[in-house]
Amino acid sequence: MVIGPSFADEVLSGDRRALARAITLVEEAAPEREALLAAVASRVGRARRFGVTGPPGVGKSTLVGELATLLRKAGRTVGVVGVDPTSPYTGGALLGDRIRMERLGLDAGVFIRSMATRGTLGGLSRATCDACDLLDASGKDAVLVESVGVGQSEVEVTHAVDLTLVVISPESGDSVQAMKAGLLEAADVIVINKADRPGAERMEADLRDVLALSRPATRPAPPLYRTVAATGQGVPELLAAVDAKWEEWSSGGQLAERRRSNLASRLRSTVVAEVERMLDEEAAEGKVVAAVHDGRTALAEAVEEVLLLLKKKLEDRFC
Amino acid sequence: MVIGPSFADEVLSGDRRALARAITLVEEAAPEREALLAAVASRVGRARRFGVTGPPGVGKSTLVGELATLLRKAGRTVGVVGVDPTSPYTGGALLGDRIRMERLGLDAGVFIRSMATRGTLGGLSRATCDACDLLDASGKDAVLVESVGVGQSEVEVTHAVDLTLVVISPESGDSVQAMKAGLLEAADVIVINKADRPGAERMEADLRDVLALSRPATRPAPPLYRTVAATGQGVPELLAAVDAKWEEWSSGGQLAERRRSNLASRLRSTVVAEVERMLDEEAAEGKVVAAVHDGRTALAEAVEEVLLLLKKKLEDRFC
Repeated sequence: MVIGPSFADEVLSGDRRALARAITLVEEAAPEREALLAAVASRVGRARRFGVTGPPGVGKSTLVGELATLLRKAGRTVGVVGVDPTSPYTGGALLGDRIRMERLGLDAGVFIRSMATRGTLGGLSRATCDACDLLDASGKDAVLVESVGVGQSEVEVTHAVDLTLVVISPESGDSVQAMKAGLLEAADVIVINKADRPGAERMEADLRDVLALSRPATRPAPPLYRTVAATGQGVPELLAAVDAKWEEWSSGGQLAERRRSNLASRLRSTVVAEVERMLDEEAAEGKVVAAVHDGRTALAEAVEEVLLLLKKKLEDRFC
Repeated sequence: MVIGPSFADEVLSGDRRALARAITLVEEAAPEREALLAAVASRVGRARRFGVTGPPGVGKSTLVGELATLLRKAGRTVGVVGVDPTSPYTGGALLGDRIRMERLGLDAGVFIRSMATRGTLGGLSRATCDACDLLDASGKDAVLVESVGVGQSEVEVTHAVDLTLVVISPESGDSVQAMKAGLLEAADVIVINKADRPGAERMEADLRDVLALSRPATRPAPPLYRTVAATGQGVPELLAAVDAKWEEWSSGGQLAERRRSNLASRLRSTVVAEVERMLDEEAAEGKVVAAVHDGRTALAEAVEEVLLLLKKKLEDRFC
C-alpha cells in the first residue's frame, strides 16, 4: 500500500476511505503503522471509548447498534470496532453477524469496522487500540468496541476503552458461572440484556449477591441496568448513565488514571509481542525444545538458555 | 514450607499429602518448584492426559466425574485438575462447584485438585502443566484437566494435555457462536453434552456444517459424540473413543509430536512470564509510561526504551 504525505491528514479529516486503509495498516502491523500513529497522536484523546463485552449470544451487536443509533440521533458521530477472536490454528476469523449493522453503516456519521488479526491475542488487542486511536483522531465523538468476552484474554481488549459494559442475558448461564469466568470484574457497568426473558429478575438478584460478596470494600459494585436491545427498551437510560459516569470520571481524575493504566498495559503487551517476534526468528529455540523433549535439558535450564538467546538478540538490536 | 530430601520420593510413591503439598508449591511458584520438577522429571510421560474444556454451564464437571468413575471401574487411577480462571483484579478465584466430586475424591485411586493461581494467565497455564507432571509422575494412569474455555486464553491450558475434548451443550448458544470464539479449533474430540435437551440434533448438524467449511482440507474434522453426563449416557462410548485415539496417536507418532509442540508452548510461555517478571521489577518502565501519557514520547519509541531496560536486566543476570 502506498501512503502519500497527505494520508494522515485525510485520516484526521475523517475521510472514510483513508480511515479504512489506515485501520487495515494497523491490523496488518504494516511498516507504515508507526509513522501513521505518530502523525495522528496529537489528535487522540477526545472520543469517549466504550467497550461492550460479554459471552456469545447475549445480544451485544444489537445493543451496540441501538447505542450507535441513539448517539447519532443526538448528533454525535460514532466509530464501531467489532473484535473477532483470532483462531490460533487456521489464522482465520468467521465473519460476524454484522448484517443488521449495514443500514447504520450507510450513515456518513458512523464508521463500522470488524477486526480480524492473525497471530497472537496480543496482536488483536494492539490492533484494536490502534483502530480506536485512529477513529478518535478522525473526529468520532464516541467509539464503541464490541468483543466476545468470557476469559482473561478478552480483558486485554478492555485496555482499548475508557469504560467497559459487560453484557449478560438470562440465557447465558447463571450468574455464578459468569462470575467464575472473571468477566464481571472487568465491568464498569453491567447490562442484563434480553431482560424480558424469564429469569432476568432472579439473575439481577443473584448478581447483586455475588458482587456484594466478591468485590473488595474499596471498590464499589458496578451499577446494573436491564435492557431489551431488540426493542430499544432501557437503552436510552443505559446510555445516559454511561455518559454520566464518563463525565464524572473525566472531572474526577479517574479517566486520566484509567487511560494511563491502559497505556501501561498497551506498552507492556507491545513489548512482549516484540520479544515473541524476536524469539520466533530464533531457530536455536527449536534445538532447546528438542533437548528438553529428549530429557537432555531440564525445563528451568532451557528457560535460561532461551533468555540468553534473547539477550544476544537485544544486544544485536542496540549495537 | 520445609521440604525434606525424601519429599520427591513421597510424591513419586503417590502419597496424597505430599502430592497436595507439591501442587501447592508449583501453584505458588515457590523457590523449591524447579528442584521438585527436576527430581520427578524422569518419571513424567506415562499418564494419558485429557483436557475437558467448554463454556460455563455445559456440564464439564459432571462429565469429568463420569469419566473418572468409569476409569476407576476399569482399575485405572485418576488425577483431576480443575482450572479456575484467575481474576485479574482481586487475585481471587471462586470455589467451583466441586461438591459432587467429593464422594469420588474419597477413593484413594483418585486425586482431585482445583487450581487457582494469582497473576497472569500464563502462570495458570504453567501451574496446570506442572500439576499434570506431578500427577503423572505420582503414577496416575489418567489425568483429566477441566477448564472453562471460550477464548484463546483457554487454548493455552490445552498445552497441558495430550488430547482435548471440547464440550458444548444445546443450551450454550448456537454452534456458530461457539465457532466464532475459536473454541472448536482446539478440539480433538467434540462432545455435545445434555444431548437429551431440545436442539441437540440440530446443533450436531450445524456443527458438522461449520466444521466442514472451516477446517483446512489437511486437518480432518474432529469426531463428535453426544452424551448425557448426568445419567452417564454415551460416556462409556466417549471414553472408549478417546482411549482409542490416544493409542492410535501413541503408535503413529502424533502423540510425540503433540507433546513436543506442547513443550515448545510451555517453554515459550515460561520465558515470556520471566521477561514480564523482570519488567515488573523495573521501576523505570513507569517513567516511560508517564512520558507517553504526557505526549513526550511516542509509543514506538517507548517500546525501544523498555527493550533497552530489558537488555540491561538480562546483561546483569548473565554477568
